[in-house]
Amino acid sequence: MTLILALDFGGTKLAAATVKAGSREWLRYENRLSPANADALSDIEIMRSLIDSVLDKNKPDAIGVSFGGPVDAATGMVRLSHHVPGWENIPLKELLEEDYNAPTSVDNDANVAAIGEHRFGAGRGYDSLFYITISTGVGGGWILNGKPWQGAGGMAGEIGHMVVDPTGPVCLCGKRGCVERLASGPYMVQNARELLDKETQDFSPSTRGEILRYLVSNDLNLLTGQVISTAAAHGDELAQEVLYKAAWALGVGIGNVANLMNPQRFVLGGGVTKAGDSFWATVRKVAQETALPEVNFEVVRALLGDDAPLWGAVALGLDIAR
Amino acid sequence: MTLILALDFGGTKLAAATVKAGSREWLRYENRLSPANADALSDIEIMRSLIDSVLDKNKPDAIGVSFGGPVDAATGMVRLSHHVPGWENIPLKELLEEDYNAPTSVDNDANVAAIGEHRFGAGRGYDSLFYITISTGVGGGWILNGKPWQGAGGMAGEIGHMVVDPTGPVCLCGKRGCVERLASGPYMVQNARELLDKETQDFSPSTRGEILRYLVSNDLNLLTGQVISTAAAHGDELAQEVLYKAAWALGVGIGNVANLMNPQRFVLGGGVTKAGDSFWATVRKVAQETALPEVNFEVVRALLGDDAPLWGAVALGLDIAR
Repeated sequence: MTLILALDFGGTKLAAATVKAGSREWLRYENRLSPANADALSDIEIMRSLIDSVLDKNKPDAIGVSFGGPVDAATGMVRLSHHVPGWENIPLKELLEEDYNAPTSVDNDANVAAIGEHRFGAGRGYDSLFYITISTGVGGGWILNGKPWQGAGGMAGEIGHMVVDPTGPVCLCGKRGCVERLASGPYMVQNARELLDKETQDFSPSTRGEILRYLVSNDLNLLTGQVISTAAAHGDELAQEVLYKAAWALGVGIGNVANLMNPQRFVLGGGVTKAGDSFWATVRKVAQETALPEVNFEVVRALLGDDAPLWGAVALGLDIAR
Repeated sequence: MTLILALDFGGTKLAAATVKAGSREWLRYENRLSPANADALSDIEIMRSLIDSVLDKNKPDAIGVSFGGPVDAATGMVRLSHHVPGWENIPLKELLEEDYNAPTSVDNDANVAAIGEHRFGAGRGYDSLFYITISTGVGGGWILNGKPWQGAGGMAGEIGHMVVDPTGPVCLCGKRGCVERLASGPYMVQNARELLDKETQDFSPSTRGEILRYLVSNDLNLLTGQVISTAAAHGDELAQEVLYKAAWALGVGIGNVANLMNPQRFVLGGGVTKAGDSFWATVRKVAQETALPEVNFEVVRALLGDDAPLWGAVALGLDIAR
C-alpha cells in the first residue's frame, strides 16, 4: 500500500492528512490554527506534531506540500510568507525529506490547489485551466498541457495584481485598480465602509446600505464579504454596487486571460465565490464581453473547497511516489 | 541534404523561400504583394508560382507555413483571414501536402514569429518567452517550456485586445482601451489626427503638432506611425503624447502578462518598435511598475525583423523533417 502524506501550510491554518494511493478519503486528518505570534519555527513545530499524529508511526512513501507563499518548486525552497515571519529561504523540501525519509514535492498554494482541482475536482479531463482563488487575496494557478506552469521564477498566476481600472483605488501593491483591490474579501469590506461613510455625509434620504448596517447591527467592524453578499441578495443597492464592482473586475481579468492564454476552463474557488447567482452571472457576462468572440471558455465553481490545496498535495505526492 | 520550404501568407504580402537544414541563409527567396482585390484562391495561385520559382524543380523535405490569421495548428486548417476573403475553413496543410508531397506544418503568424525568434533570434536559449508584434495590429505568440503554446482553440497570444484603460477610446473589437487601440500604428495615426483637430478648434497659440504637420506638409492622410515617431523625436509634444500613450498601454500589458505567466523574456517586433529610445524606456518603466517586484523579466527587441515568420516557418519545417 502506497501511503501519501499531504501538508498544507496556510497563512492562518496548518493541516496534515494521510491517504492511500487510489483513495479519495482521508485516512487521517488533523488541523490547527497558526497562532497570532507564529513564526516559521513555531509553524514547523506544530506541523511536526500534526504529522506524528496522522502518520501514527507509519512511514509515508511520498510527501506533497502546499505552502501559502512564493516557493521555488524546483528546489522546494520557500522564498517567504506574506503572513508569517521567518520563512525566508527555508529549505522545506530538504527538511521534510531528512526528517521523514520520503521524497517530497513543495509548491505554492494556488498552484497546488490548481493541481488538486485538475486531478480530483472541477478540472478533471481538462488539459488547460486557470484556477483562481478569491478570498483574503486573489491568486491563481495554471495547468497547461496537463501540467502545472509555475513561470520562470515560480511567480506565474498573479491575476490578483492585474490592473483592470487604472483610475481605480490604490492597492497595497502601489498600483491602482488591481483585480485584488476590487474583488478580495477585505477590500470589498473597505469599499463598502467608504461608501457607507459617504452616504452618511450626504445627509440624503437613502436606503442604500440600510440592510448592510442592519446585518451588522451598525457595527462596521463586523462587515465581511459574506455579509455584503447577503445584503446584496436582499436588495441593498450599496452592497450590490460593491459586489458588482468585484464581479466586474474578476470578469475583465478572466476575459483578458482568456484572450492571452485561451485555456479551456476557469475554475473559481475561495470565500468570495460563495456570493450568489448575480455575482456569478456578472463574472461570466463581463468575461465573455472582454474576450474576443472566437475565444471559447467556461467559468465554473471549484469543487474541492478549502481542501483543494491538500488534495493537490496528494497529487504532488502521488507523482513522485510512482 | 534536407531542403525546407518556408511560406509566409501575410495580410498584404506573400513570400516563399528555401533553405538547407543547418543554414541561416536563404537558398532562394521570392515575394509578391497580395493584390487589393485578392481572395484565398488568388493568393494560393500567386503562392504556387512563388513556390515553383524557389523550388526550382527540387522536392522539399518539409514545408513550414506562417498564416496571417487564426489557424488550427493541430489540423493545419485556416479559420479565416481578417484581411483577405475566402479563407474560411481552407485545409491549407492538406492542400500543400497533396501538391508537394511533403509533410507540412501551419500556424498563425504571431506564433510562428515567436518560434522564429526563439530558434534563431532574440529568444535563443530562453525556454519561456512572449513575442509581441506591434504594427498594423498588436498580436503575440507564446513559447513555454521551449515549445509553442497556442491555447486550447489556437487563440492564445491576443494581448492586443487586453483592456488596459476601460475609459479609453473604443476599439474595433467593441471594447474600450485595448492595447491595440492605443499602440497599433493605424490607431496611433487616428489618435494623432483627433488631437490635431482638437488643437485647431481650440484656436489657442500652440506649437503642439506643428512638427507633425510640417513633416506631412499639412496633409494628414500622409500620417504614419513612423512620422509620429519622428515628430516626437524632434520635440513635437502632441506626437510625444500619442507615442507615450502607446508605450504606456504596451507597458501595462507587458507588466500584467509578466504577473500572470512569469516568462523570462518579452521580445518586441513590428514597425512601431522602430520608435526611438524614449518609447522603449517608457515601455520598460511602465512594465516594471505594473509587475510585482518579485517578478523578473527582460523586454528586448526582436532580431529577425520582417523575416521572423519565415524563419519560424523554417523551424516548423525542420521539426517535422527530422
